[in-house]
Amino acid sequence: MTRKINIFDTTLRDGEQSPGASMNTEEKLVIARQLLRLNVDVIEAGFPISSPGDFESVRRIAELAGEDATVAGLTRAIEKDIDVAADALKYAKRPRIHTGIGVSPSHMRDKLRITEDQCIERAVHAVKYAKKYVEDVQFYAEDAGRSDYAFLAKVIQAVIEAGATVVNIPDTTGYSLPEEFGCRIKYLMEHVRGIENATVSVHCHNDLGMATALAMAGVKNGATQVECTINGLGERAGNTAMEEVVMAIRMHEAELDAHTDINTREFIKASRLVSSITGMNVQANKAIVGANAFAHSSGIHQDGVLKKRDTYEIIDPAEVGAGQSQIVLTARSGHAALKHRLEELGYEFEGEQLDSIYEAFLRVADRKKEVYDEDLESLVNERDREESALYTLESVQVSCGFPLKPTATLTLQNPEGELVTVCDFGTGPIDAVYKAVNQIIEVENDLSEFSVQAVTRGIDALGEVTVRVKAEGGEVYTGRGADGDIIVSSTKAYLNALNRLLSEKR
Amino acid sequence: MTRKINIFDTTLRDGEQSPGASMNTEEKLVIARQLLRLNVDVIEAGFPISSPGDFESVRRIAELAGEDATVAGLTRAIEKDIDVAADALKYAKRPRIHTGIGVSPSHMRDKLRITEDQCIERAVHAVKYAKKYVEDVQFYAEDAGRSDYAFLAKVIQAVIEAGATVVNIPDTTGYSLPEEFGCRIKYLMEHVRGIENATVSVHCHNDLGMATALAMAGVKNGATQVECTINGLGERAGNTAMEEVVMAIRMHEAELDAHTDINTREFIKASRLVSSITGMNVQANKAIVGANAFAHSSGIHQDGVLKKRDTYEIIDPAEVGAGQSQIVLTARSGHAALKHRLEELGYEFEGEQLDSIYEAFLRVADRKKEVYDEDLESLVNERDREESALYTLESVQVSCGFPLKPTATLTLQNPEGELVTVCDFGTGPIDAVYKAVNQIIEVENDLSEFSVQAVTRGIDALGEVTVRVKAEGGEVYTGRGADGDIIVSSTKAYLNALNRLLSEKR
Repeated sequence: MTRKINIFDTTLRDGEQSPGASMNTEEKLVIARQLLRLNVDVIEAGFPISSPGDFESVRRIAELAGEDATVAGLTRAIEKDIDVAADALKYAKRPRIHTGIGVSPSHMRDKLRITEDQCIERAVHAVKYAKKYVEDVQFYAEDAGRSDYAFLAKVIQAVIEAGATVVNIPDTTGYSLPEEFGCRIKYLMEHVRGIENATVSVHCHNDLGMATALAMAGVKNGATQVECTINGLGERAGNTAMEEVVMAIRMHEAELDAHTDINTREFIKASRLVSSITGMNVQANKAIVGANAFAHSSGIHQDGVLKKRDTYEIIDPAEVGAGQSQIVLTARSGHAALKHRLEELGYEFEGEQLDSIYEAFLRVADRKKEVYDEDLESLVNERDREESALYTLESVQVSCGFPLKPTATLTLQNPEGELVTVCDFGTGPIDAVYKAVNQIIEVENDLSEFSVQAVTRGIDALGEVTVRVKAEGGEVYTGRGADGDIIVSSTKAYLNALNRLLSEKR
Repeated sequence: MTRKINIFDTTLRDGEQSPGASMNTEEKLVIARQLLRLNVDVIEAGFPISSPGDFESVRRIAELAGEDATVAGLTRAIEKDIDVAADALKYAKRPRIHTGIGVSPSHMRDKLRITEDQCIERAVHAVKYAKKYVEDVQFYAEDAGRSDYAFLAKVIQAVIEAGATVVNIPDTTGYSLPEEFGCRIKYLMEHVRGIENATVSVHCHNDLGMATALAMAGVKNGATQVECTINGLGERAGNTAMEEVVMAIRMHEAELDAHTDINTREFIKASRLVSSITGMNVQANKAIVGANAFAHSSGIHQDGVLKKRDTYEIIDPAEVGAGQSQIVLTARSGHAALKHRLEELGYEFEGEQLDSIYEAFLRVADRKKEVYDEDLESLVNERDREESALYTLESVQVSCGFPLKPTATLTLQNPEGELVTVCDFGTGPIDAVYKAVNQIIEVENDLSEFSVQAVTRGIDALGEVTVRVKAEGGEVYTGRGADGDIIVSSTKAYLNALNRLLSEKR
């Protein structure tokens, strides 16, 4: 039997730190259910002290996961952080506190302003303090990729002596070369007394496009936990992508003496779900889950693949869930069929909630012959967004074209329940609508991104629009809207973003 | 002085093989000009025998490059291919023929159906045959990543003896681990007699997300040429991204004893240009050129970066051309200013052509206060597309909204010069327009992708729409349209794709 490599997913923590990818608790629970279907070993569910929303997410995901996965909460090496994380994890069957501190010269000197001895002291204290609450304590040595080898070994040895069960060696800035990072892990395996009593974990960043290779170098040299995210989301250029590192391990099991327990057939679904919820699209030439990952266009390649698949293709697309037959619902599907399918997708609805989704489902089924999983996901997400709205869309009508002056007439219900109607014109129809919205909702904002995803097959599909707006203070709010009419989904997306902005301001 | 690593760009050859990324000759010339600004060493301009368009592109790029870059044309190890490539390269100042053959058991047995001896014989013959035309002959050992070490060394030694100046070791399937691929290069450096007389090149694929790391392992072990593409475009999950490998070399110059001569400040511009022309979007968490590559969202990181930039960021964004001040034109800019700016962007227009672009520029400048480089690029690309149209847009008017039934009225001029008007309704306004288009242009097609890019700042920006349609035979055609009105750009994009489909059918 080869070494089991634990998969530690941090989509909901580091992934959510991608600018513009913030999620609410309901959205995080949907992703957590998919992570359980993937059979990950650890879900890092948030950074409890950072906000009430993160606290709540960790608490609810801890309940959800039960015995099926370890749930981790992040903390700094600060008692208050650890207290709050322990509180969020109190109903977890398999809780883990993830604490740590910067260990590179740059972090100790410029950010923390502490000496090496103070650093070790704080690290040891944090681990011991966390051990009072839980048995499973993971320590992260932030910016380990740029730390001194001997000092890093000293820190790691000290925290293992203090009781850390997992030691996480992150390449925080994504600066390392894989070979050098591998040497660092090897050095620790050889020089840290008691390292065999802890799991060595790697957490790599993609700033030079090598996050997956860095993690693989770690695995090769002794790491048995990899931290990663769906679609490689994360700060800046992101983290190691789970789908890449898991498939790379699978393709090289024997050489690496390693395997994971991940259910790879859930990858494509997980990728789409995360991209739909966060609004972070995946480029076509993304490994494993990109639209072109298994597409061949050159004649030579097509000829080769037709003769024998493995001349140019090493992974069977079915292994990662691509092109699998989909369950399709139609206007003749009943409540039970819808409920069953939603449950398989990770959503649980009863009573009135189910009724209202069933009605929305019928409206879509009337327009389209077949309703796919992606349509259902759009519907459910759409519904979540409407529930907390301050301003809601009553009606919008637009006329535009060439050579016409795009004009929009809009009616919104304001928080006081009154209907307000305005009209405006613009460069394009969406510009006209947005100007009309701004007439009613007077809040400073800057539209920084606008993207449209045809979530399903063909142009009669539900079009999902994601917008990002920047508030005066620089905070970014994401809004999404789904509708068969792109003008309507754009309107909903913008309203959704502004509603979020307003809720937070109040 | 460290080793000079040659950058061999294959955006126009392997990159163009990305499904849906095909470009016409004019578009390829625009990208070639940008490659010259990046100061690449070699431009692989196409596969001359594959189509008259590829032939023409190689011929014109060879003329354009002059002494500034080597221009390579791809061939199989077949005399006819080499004859045609030599013809396409005859006006090049620095021509290179890039010939080769599959060397893995899978390729020899299943695709080529030849023995090892036959493989070497064909390889040697192709190199000698190409040498009759040009001095600079590059040999590719296709699927080298899965070949037998000793046999690969034998092939490489034979082609160097036959006169190959560059030997390209591709990991065609993207299967290798970086460390193993590095060992393969090292083995060749140590076992091939005469290897010091040739340049060793690496060409890696991204199927497991490690294309950049693979190329870096090659450089570390002796390769002095890297094959790569802008944005990592290429077959399936793509190739090594130029921006990643060049920045990784720059960050590790001393350890690698290596440098490149690339002008990194042109990266962001190159990335946007390629993404706009091919319609292949770049995800936000793409290394170096993604929208989030230098963005920090978590409080901890922001705090660190404010204290000292390099706590979390190792590359100064200005080094890759991010956030540089842009030259902005307005409605008061004259012909000369527009011409000058277009030239800086790589476009050369005179007389009537310039007049017509100036008119279009004024229309945009009237609507928007400021016209950015991206707007100009949209305008020019739009113009190229209109020139070869069979069906042209006369007018389109749409009314839609919620709760309205989206309806479109469309007038096209057909190839006979007649105006045809129809109306139709649909799920959304774009669906309604597309149905109307289909009423006039009766050609079987399947819309396989629809994407919208707000190419510039704010929602009053020109919206660029890319669609991909699949013809009956499975061929994919890309269409693009740019207009301030998303309905108009969607209409233009669809017309553009169908016009391309029809031209090829005729």
